[in-house]
Amino acid sequence: MRAVHTVNDLRDALESAEQIGLVPTMGALHAGHEKLIEMARRECRTIVVSIFVNPIQFGPNEDYSRYPRTLEQDLEACARCGADLVFAPSVEEMYPLPQLTFVEVTRVSEHLCGKFRPGHFRGVATVVLKLLNIVQPQRAYFGEKDLQQLQVIRRMVLDVNLPVTVVGVPTVREADGLARSSRNKYLSEEERRAAPALYQALQAAVSGIREGERDVTKVKSTALEILERQPLIRVEYLEIVDPDELAPVSTPIGASVRIAAAIWIGSTRLIDNLFVNAV
Amino acid sequence: MRAVHTVNDLRDALESAEQIGLVPTMGALHAGHEKLIEMARRECRTIVVSIFVNPIQFGPNEDYSRYPRTLEQDLEACARCGADLVFAPSVEEMYPLPQLTFVEVTRVSEHLCGKFRPGHFRGVATVVLKLLNIVQPQRAYFGEKDLQQLQVIRRMVLDVNLPVTVVGVPTVREADGLARSSRNKYLSEEERRAAPALYQALQAAVSGIREGERDVTKVKSTALEILERQPLIRVEYLEIVDPDELAPVSTPIGASVRIAAAIWIGSTRLIDNLFVNAV
Repeated sequence: MRAVHTVNDLRDALESAEQIGLVPTMGALHAGHEKLIEMARRECRTIVVSIFVNPIQFGPNEDYSRYPRTLEQDLEACARCGADLVFAPSVEEMYPLPQLTFVEVTRVSEHLCGKFRPGHFRGVATVVLKLLNIVQPQRAYFGEKDLQQLQVIRRMVLDVNLPVTVVGVPTVREADGLARSSRNKYLSEEERRAAPALYQALQAAVSGIREGERDVTKVKSTALEILERQPLIRVEYLEIVDPDELAPVSTPIGASVRIAAAIWIGSTRLIDNLFVNAV
Repeated sequence: MRAVHTVNDLRDALESAEQIGLVPTMGALHAGHEKLIEMARRECRTIVVSIFVNPIQFGPNEDYSRYPRTLEQDLEACARCGADLVFAPSVEEMYPLPQLTFVEVTRVSEHLCGKFRPGHFRGVATVVLKLLNIVQPQRAYFGEKDLQQLQVIRRMVLDVNLPVTVVGVPTVREADGLARSSRNKYLSEEERRAAPALYQALQAAVSGIREGERDVTKVKSTALEILERQPLIRVEYLEIVDPDELAPVSTPIGASVRIAAAIWIGSTRLIDNLFVNAV
């Protein structure tokens, strides 16, 4: 496995590569990322992992500066999971000029996290377009934990005719259900003990729908009650949404929806979601 | 030469193509487009001309519906100039879903025409990104007559790391100086006689600067006087701008600037520009 830090070195390294699979990450790799790399390994011949903490997707009061940066361990994880090439550019390499060009994916970006993180998905779509143009993969892998990111990218790829297949990879969870996230590192022991309530709340909503409840308010109340029992948790949103554009659905709930939530525990923001698919 | 109308047919036709040159047009081809195709012919092995009147770059009160559509003559011109492939998709082929994704090139899009055609360059950047992704050319050719479009695309290509070289091709003019444009067809005989004042005004500005005038207001006055002598002409803007982002410059005028103007003659809007380069 090789690590490169510039666009030119990456393009040189990939010159005669075929069937490229790209796994875009912000580093601080965990079992969720490892699953992305392993999935890519099974489906592609050349596996590229990008590691880049993208400043333009963080708001001014967000955690850009404290976001965990663990390049050495990340390189070990990439090698272990079968990556061929790691692309770990500097901010100056990715943004050598003032970035004037931005990709907006309307509607899909506007719900859920989009309401609370203005400009976030614009930053995500823009950097992913850059990475796709730099690496030119046939397949690109994204975790389903970041559901809205996945849907924004799926729609961008369709809308701008990018010749890449976007693959969503199921969320990896701890034994107690907490979704793996680089941000779990921020949690104190006490906060970590409260965190699984997020998954439990989503599960309760799924169970309610599976058992036949079709009233949005009732399903949400059941889930919110579980979160409200935790004094350390503040709910940012919990919504039942359609699976494509992620807009909140209305009563009666249809057969195929997503339950998505964002919570704060202390100064840490966590998101998670579950699928309820048509039987 | 072949003409194809779908993305799939185009990709099939280009499967083993090398050194692709793309000439994106809205059809109604004239000598300016022919020069683009001929330039591509000299520099590339496979020449693709796209012909698509892009609805999302027209404002609600603009000339989308009456824009000239002359596909048969366009195909003849493409064949004559040495194109290998014409891509002439329908609106449904280019926008099979509601288009939710848009590319914004800030700053460069905001001056000149950007002030008077809100959303125009967003529509241009978005469709050009789509065409570049569909055709995947090594080089793409654009006329310098549409200076702001050229600069928007140049910046987009840099900012999103598209692996394509953007080539600007000098404006082709009629004997009396009028820049060739598909919209010249809209002009009545009387309007056509007034139209060369646009080029004359720009030339007067260039002469003034070349002769040492460095005062923006004075250079503009000289040019505007020429336009104001024509009762059929209404000036939308006439600006002296920097060559990259096309922002108006201030006195004293530097050595390398562009003079750009937009005028209305009756219901026809014409644009033109000239370069004043550092000696």
